[in-house]
Amino acid sequence: MNKIDNFKSIVDRYKVVFFDAFGVLKNYKGLLPGIERTFAYLEQQKKEYYIVTNDASRSPAQLAESYQIKGLYTITSDHIISSGMLTKDYLDLKVNDGIVAYLGTPDSAHYIDSTGLHTLPVSAIDAGNIDKVNALVFLDDEGFNWFEDLNKTVNILRKRAIPVIVANTDHAYPVTKHDVSIAIGGIANMVEKIVGKEFIRFGKPDSQMFMFAYDLLRDQGPISKKDIVMVGDTLQTDILGGNKFGLDTVLVLSGNTRPDDAGNRINATGIVPTYICDSAVIEHGELGF
Amino acid sequence: MNKIDNFKSIVDRYKVVFFDAFGVLKNYKGLLPGIERTFAYLEQQKKEYYIVTNDASRSPAQLAESYQIKGLYTITSDHIISSGMLTKDYLDLKVNDGIVAYLGTPDSAHYIDSTGLHTLPVSAIDAGNIDKVNALVFLDDEGFNWFEDLNKTVNILRKRAIPVIVANTDHAYPVTKHDVSIAIGGIANMVEKIVGKEFIRFGKPDSQMFMFAYDLLRDQGPISKKDIVMVGDTLQTDILGGNKFGLDTVLVLSGNTRPDDAGNRINATGIVPTYICDSAVIEHGELGF
Amino acid sequence: MNKIDNFKSIVDRYKVVFFDAFGVLKNYKGLLPGIERTFAYLEQQKKEYYIVTNDASRSPAQLAESYQIKGLYTITSDHIISSGMLTKDYLDLKVNDGIVAYLGTPDSAHYIDSTGLHTLPVSAIDAGNIDKVNALVFLDDEGFNWFEDLNKTVNILRKRAIPVIVANTDHAYPVTKHDVSIAIGGIANMVEKIVGKEFIRFGKPDSQMFMFAYDLLRDQGPISKKDIVMVGDTLQTDILGGNKFGLDTVLVLSGNTRPDDAGNRINATGIVPTYICDSAVIEHGELGF
Amino acid sequence: MNKIDNFKSIVDRYKVVFFDAFGVLKNYKGLLPGIERTFAYLEQQKKEYYIVTNDASRSPAQLAESYQIKGLYTITSDHIISSGMLTKDYLDLKVNDGIVAYLGTPDSAHYIDSTGLHTLPVSAIDAGNIDKVNALVFLDDEGFNWFEDLNKTVNILRKRAIPVIVANTDHAYPVTKHDVSIAIGGIANMVEKIVGKEFIRFGKPDSQMFMFAYDLLRDQGPISKKDIVMVGDTLQTDILGGNKFGLDTVLVLSGNTRPDDAGNRINATGIVPTYICDSAVIEHGELGF
Repeated sequence: MNKIDNFKSIVDRYKVVFFDAFGVLKNYKGLLPGIERTFAYLEQQKKEYYIVTNDASRSPAQLAESYQIKGLYTITSDHIISSGMLTKDYLDLKVNDGIVAYLGTPDSAHYIDSTGLHTLPVSAIDAGNIDKVNALVFLDDEGFNWFEDLNKTVNILRKRAIPVIVANTDHAYPVTKHDVSIAIGGIANMVEKIVGKEFIRFGKPDSQMFMFAYDLLRDQGPISKKDIVMVGDTLQTDILGGNKFGLDTVLVLSGNTRPDDAGNRINATGIVPTYICDSAVIEHGELGF
Repeated sequence: MNKIDNFKSIVDRYKVVFFDAFGVLKNYKGLLPGIERTFAYLEQQKKEYYIVTNDASRSPAQLAESYQIKGLYTITSDHIISSGMLTKDYLDLKVNDGIVAYLGTPDSAHYIDSTGLHTLPVSAIDAGNIDKVNALVFLDDEGFNWFEDLNKTVNILRKRAIPVIVANTDHAYPVTKHDVSIAIGGIANMVEKIVGKEFIRFGKPDSQMFMFAYDLLRDQGPISKKDIVMVGDTLQTDILGGNKFGLDTVLVLSGNTRPDDAGNRINATGIVPTYICDSAVIEHGELGF
Repeated sequence: MNKIDNFKSIVDRYKVVFFDAFGVLKNYKGLLPGIERTFAYLEQQKKEYYIVTNDASRSPAQLAESYQIKGLYTITSDHIISSGMLTKDYLDLKVNDGIVAYLGTPDSAHYIDSTGLHTLPVSAIDAGNIDKVNALVFLDDEGFNWFEDLNKTVNILRKRAIPVIVANTDHAYPVTKHDVSIAIGGIANMVEKIVGKEFIRFGKPDSQMFMFAYDLLRDQGPISKKDIVMVGDTLQTDILGGNKFGLDTVLVLSGNTRPDDAGNRINATGIVPTYICDSAVIEHGELGF
Repeated sequence: MNKIDNFKSIVDRYKVVFFDAFGVLKNYKGLLPGIERTFAYLEQQKKEYYIVTNDASRSPAQLAESYQIKGLYTITSDHIISSGMLTKDYLDLKVNDGIVAYLGTPDSAHYIDSTGLHTLPVSAIDAGNIDKVNALVFLDDEGFNWFEDLNKTVNILRKRAIPVIVANTDHAYPVTKHDVSIAIGGIANMVEKIVGKEFIRFGKPDSQMFMFAYDLLRDQGPISKKDIVMVGDTLQTDILGGNKFGLDTVLVLSGNTRPDDAGNRINATGIVPTYICDSAVIEHGELGF
């Protein structure tokens, strides 16, 4: 059996904490009860933190608002790193003109739209504008007709040799205690296999997510990877990605990895967190204020 | 460059011909012009033949009717082996009671329904009957709401440890000269990866398709695999499957494999047909009647 | 928790029993103590049986001898179906002349040699005879120099578009209580990925193994798939393959699948055996003779 | 047909050039004739450059020496970024004590040895020290007995839940005009599949290689990704990785990608370089000095 560590004493050892969002700060029912104490403690101790999330469905401002509505007032948009931000960066650097076709909601597209490119839903691509499509982005599993628009996506990609960006690498996400939804990452894998091309993926465990946060930290002053700890509930994304980037890692048992299964999963995958905690919640009695 | 063989002279060397359907007998425009002469010749020469097809969207009777409507009167349902027939056999042998949930059209389900099991579309499964679902079948890419019913399928399979049958292994199929549609086999791969289970697949290149036809032949009298030639347009299904089953094989260039690319594809895949022909059409002048 | 069934009472319900070898009849220490009683019972009850094994390292005669040496005198070579036999059948039907290059021991090659083809170890292929190589077979993980001969195999396959047969699909096999060896099936996967070609695999769960045994049974008289039960220790090969072929299946807990993990594995894979037994051993008191 | 660009005029547009090594600067015969002019031009124009290579077989000092021996005196070790350096960084950050077991030559291990950890070849691991093994590294395809040490590696990883680092992601590398050798990346994939664990890979197309070079550049002064161009001969590693990191990219036709196949490969993969050049060689007449 693995030893369970105390989350507060781990936080005390680092200058910066990276958090995954789903399964760590919130779940299908809303915020984890007591998680506000963790952020109060970080604030009081003047620790820096980032939320590093495979979520391209909304802008950082909208993501931050979703925490503030629920009472986590300290989480502002500059504390959020999403795979959608990396997608926007890619388009800024690599796609200079023409149309960016997308699968997702208008909200998700509004965000990447700000690059000055012309973003259009896949449903709006036709014989008259297909030659101007210079990139295609998988943003969200909602906001389009799966049957019509996935078939159209396959045919666009058979005709155009263009970069395809998958802005969320997850295959599924929980929607209730027992049910999940297919995520845009799972859909993108199907399309990639059918068209036989290589897509570009942004999202943990890929290092580019961590690099983005690390760059923001370096802009604020000298920092070492040894000063940062990554907290997540999923071995294959949060912990593998954090480890690979050279960070210490905390597996919390409040999400994807069940307490009675954590040891088995670690042995089976060989993905070993530095610490294991019940959750990222700091108890009231521990705070001292 | 590969040598192009004459189809009629190949037919002359065998007692039985197995044909793939799409790309060999018909394409997105209908029957291949002149293919009726091939069947007239088989009839006149008293050669046996079977159409061996990865198609579970309709019953053999309906598939046969689709040829007869177009003028190929000799193709009767007893000449058709479909992956749907193997699915029906599986359910007859292995699933004794309860509900078989399916993704597909009512037409595709009507056929497997004859086993006496209760077949229900995935959309009709709910908390009240999920415990009676004893198998789930991927039949056709049409006839259901992709967004709702694929998400429901994932959640049914997370709750029930039941056999899942994929009755068509193709990933995509052509609908016009330039466009394809995603096939149910491609969709099933996505769901299989998300739920992490092992599905049962019927369809070429799997040997069970060929075994089914071979068994029917043996019921008619002594036969050797050396007496049979398999004709197809796709290296990875028709030719690989035929080769593996021990049959001689003909690659025709009227479908998936383009004449200018056939040699490259054979070298790249290492899947080598016994013969290569332009098509399975026998020319008028060759018939002699 | 899954119900544990009594093996003898299962045998009583069928006319024919198919057995996997490793983990069912024997393990790394030798024969399972008491397994001779099971074969005595089959003999006494005049039940037919076949051993269906992913083993191409020796001929059926040699495999049978290995049981007889240990005291299982009733197991004769005509009761053994190996993936090596399917390989031999393939070569008989599909490769007419030239050299068959192989990776394995001379024993494994001696067996396929009987087809009249010239079999040569990969190490004996050079610029002077490479053009005559018309097939390449992965037979056994022993009998060759991995570094030299695997690199040579890759380069032969880059130059020759020929069928490649993998005569054992297993990735690893147990050699002691705690240790495994890499099997030729795992090595073949590596080579296949590097050369980018499609290999032909014989071995469970592929149906052709079961078809071979079923054909032998039909030669002896009328039989239905409902009369046969497949006994194995591995969900992904024995049980999946038996199920797919339409047979009832018994998972025994004397090999790959641990008693405390069987339920989890069945739920996780969705591969459901008809029965679960501790082992295929019939107890002394049950025999009645 | 794709337009062929002039390499010198591309270099003129950027401040920094990243080069792949094999297929760009050298091939199986040695340095590309004339490549010294390219480095003379970079020197004269005061352009910065890095060689970004999936090579963990030697230290940067040894890699640099291999260029200098052949006359490329300007290439010093501080211009070389190898996947081996990322491996060393990982061990420095994440593995604090114990043994690092490795597959490779003593030369490759000597380099990672400098971290202060105890490095031992896999062949030296036994029951007495296996519990101290805290990481395992795939460094090079030479320097060990494939049969004995790969089997031993599998069994070490079945017993120890430890990070496994693959320091070269290539599957094969050219050794003569027509022949390749299996690379350690291909071997690592086989072992990963057999043990069912998740390995950590360093090497293009992974972003961490490019990040490492980019960080070195930023230490020298302000730089933007727009100022850098990546030059490589392989779409799936150099071009995909460069594109994903946000760099402009040059595909050269002097290595893995043949001139008559480049257009097909780009369309088939959807990996689109910014430019295509015959090679990275600048012609004598272009230099002007």
